[in-house]
Amino acid sequence: MAYRQLTVGTVPDYLQGVPEVMEHLGGASSLTVQEVGDGNLNFVYIVSNAENPAQSVVLKQAVPFLRVVGESWPLPKERMRIEIKALAKETELCPQHVPQVYHASEEMCLVVMQNLAEHGVLRGRMIQGDVFPRLADHVSTFLAQNLFHTSDLFLDHRTKKEQVAAFVNVDLCKITEDFVFTNPYEQHETNVYNPELSDADLAFVHEDRDLKIAVAEMKYAFMNNAQALLHGDLHTGSIMAGAEETYMIDPEFAFYGPMGFDVGAIIANVLMSYFSHEFWLPQKGQDPTPVRTWHLQCVEEIWGGFAQKFDALWKAHVESQEGHLYWDYPQGEAHFQAQRERFLHHVLVDTLGFAACKMMRRILGLAKVADIADIADLKARAEIERKVLTLGKELVVNRGRFENIQEVTAMARNLSPLEGR
Amino acid sequence: MAYRQLTVGTVPDYLQGVPEVMEHLGGASSLTVQEVGDGNLNFVYIVSNAENPAQSVVLKQAVPFLRVVGESWPLPKERMRIEIKALAKETELCPQHVPQVYHASEEMCLVVMQNLAEHGVLRGRMIQGDVFPRLADHVSTFLAQNLFHTSDLFLDHRTKKEQVAAFVNVDLCKITEDFVFTNPYEQHETNVYNPELSDADLAFVHEDRDLKIAVAEMKYAFMNNAQALLHGDLHTGSIMAGAEETYMIDPEFAFYGPMGFDVGAIIANVLMSYFSHEFWLPQKGQDPTPVRTWHLQCVEEIWGGFAQKFDALWKAHVESQEGHLYWDYPQGEAHFQAQRERFLHHVLVDTLGFAACKMMRRILGLAKVADIADIADLKARAEIERKVLTLGKELVVNRGRFENIQEVTAMARNLSPLEGR
Repeated sequence: MAYRQLTVGTVPDYLQGVPEVMEHLGGASSLTVQEVGDGNLNFVYIVSNAENPAQSVVLKQAVPFLRVVGESWPLPKERMRIEIKALAKETELCPQHVPQVYHASEEMCLVVMQNLAEHGVLRGRMIQGDVFPRLADHVSTFLAQNLFHTSDLFLDHRTKKEQVAAFVNVDLCKITEDFVFTNPYEQHETNVYNPELSDADLAFVHEDRDLKIAVAEMKYAFMNNAQALLHGDLHTGSIMAGAEETYMIDPEFAFYGPMGFDVGAIIANVLMSYFSHEFWLPQKGQDPTPVRTWHLQCVEEIWGGFAQKFDALWKAHVESQEGHLYWDYPQGEAHFQAQRERFLHHVLVDTLGFAACKMMRRILGLAKVADIADIADLKARAEIERKVLTLGKELVVNRGRFENIQEVTAMARNLSPLEGR
Repeated sequence: MAYRQLTVGTVPDYLQGVPEVMEHLGGASSLTVQEVGDGNLNFVYIVSNAENPAQSVVLKQAVPFLRVVGESWPLPKERMRIEIKALAKETELCPQHVPQVYHASEEMCLVVMQNLAEHGVLRGRMIQGDVFPRLADHVSTFLAQNLFHTSDLFLDHRTKKEQVAAFVNVDLCKITEDFVFTNPYEQHETNVYNPELSDADLAFVHEDRDLKIAVAEMKYAFMNNAQALLHGDLHTGSIMAGAEETYMIDPEFAFYGPMGFDVGAIIANVLMSYFSHEFWLPQKGQDPTPVRTWHLQCVEEIWGGFAQKFDALWKAHVESQEGHLYWDYPQGEAHFQAQRERFLHHVLVDTLGFAACKMMRRILGLAKVADIADIADLKARAEIERKVLTLGKELVVNRGRFENIQEVTAMARNLSPLEGR
């Protein structure tokens, strides 16, 4: 079927021709369609059985331009091919944290999947001050399963290289290269600044030698180090979370890149939520301490859980291999353990560098996070923004000097005490 | 034309049907064919005009198995496609150091090119004690031109990613992964040891924690860091050298990998020649000092020339770009220079790590270098081998601690004084 862009009006007709979807809609004769897209690249519809709204699905269709910029930024629809393949791979490796896909069409650039609306987008719920005690466990499982099993540590040499080629994602990587690693660090016309930020605040980033070099190094690592199949955009807007369940959605930015990019993305966004609640909860008259304690604990547990689970997967995999010689000598087991520790330390270093870029770009670049950008008191917002930039600079410039994740959360607490201002 | 394996008997008929080759053979009615292949993967023939032997070409045909192991190690003939494409790219970037290609056929897995036999293979001539004053300049030009212009520092984001995918070289990379980075560092059945090496000599490599971890890290970098289009096998047997001219041949191992792998390969092989002349020149009654002085100077000049030329290409490229913003501020030029220095330091670190692996594997692995393995006095050979292993361990384990290439040559001189034993 040739590509055509669906609308609220044409979605029902399309779905009536797809039995595997209609099954999940109770074979409804009448469908209700609601556009809910808040992304930049796609149209998203919730489609429900008009007689029984509990029966519903989500339809996501890619359009050939970047929505936030407009039709002047064309994007090949090919990215939906990547999203469909990435969802399939994630479903294979970690089905409990990925939406069920009912139907996918590369020609139509669309996917129809489980409606997770009852869970809510994590970012919005975190702005409300909700906490998610199972989030770190779920996210770290998702990260460890996906990153380990798509890397050379698990895959055979041929499959890995074929996968790298199959997941080349030129256009969406370019968005990250520009909007995460370049434009926010120079006086670029696409940047948007809080007017309360001074020239000195901008120069703190735009003209700092060590920061600029470090960011360029992270960009180079992003473009060159094809370690594992990444989600590629794992911020809190790409997670649907309930008390018991957590789903990672929207892997259209998936490609083979450095593991720390995914881990850093989610850690950066939790840290930004931490900083933002210097404002939100006190403004509502609530003591922010319990929620912000959870934020930092969540950062520690995402890293700690990921490292522990990744390590266990690697150890079990090597031990299961017949005739493994490399560590097969009296001290080999201890040496292999030392290798895993050193490897995971390198991933931590990358994680901090990428987290820093993901934070700083949300302050100075085009695409903001509501956690901070929605603070109407621009002076209060600027104060938070300066703290985010300060932590970002520290993390990216000195990323090799952090021994553990607790040093990171201690630094956040130091910049912004738990109890707020 | 479907693939068929040529022989000394069938080469003339084949070439008579290729006018662009016959032109270089003076349209000869009778051709002389000599098999000269000493490689592991191919048959190589020198074909000359029987009436005028000065008119000659080289024909190289890939066969579908690894010659050194035999037909039990099948290798897709697809690698000739890689060699043809890599020769074309190198010719575009650095024609003066690449053989002229007269004819290439992917179907027949063959290439017909300039006969460089008068120059001699560099390894053999270095074993003889010849010196090549222009070698370092030529090799460093080849490295800088190829590595810079195939990287993200020069190419646009799309071309680079498409090139990475086009140069995926599964089977030949696997040979390197196994024979350079794995088997030599474990008690593998394919290894071949000088019987004069003791169990302690083997354990010095096979059971050393820091060395094993470091080698595993270099292997991981080789498999993951797609920085530039590498030659992939740049040892002294892949170079034809005369007094005035230098040609890099046989890029069938080409793929997108870490820049330091190519730089390290050639440096490792010059260093091994240095160590070997502890034996060869004194055995002939000659003072080895001048030749060995050149060896170390060559190592320093290959690195130094590469770094200087790469830096100049990068600087000129950025300065030529309209509207370049990233370093466009008062201190930007100095900051950009600091970035280049830091980048090239990272390449040096990689270079030393890869050089170390390339040296150690030639002592303990299957494929030897004649420089050392042809020393019939096994005790003298073992003494040299221990020095190579010692330098290798030092370089790979402490690769991050070397400030410059002079510290490396000083270490070599310290292990094996210039004047020999």
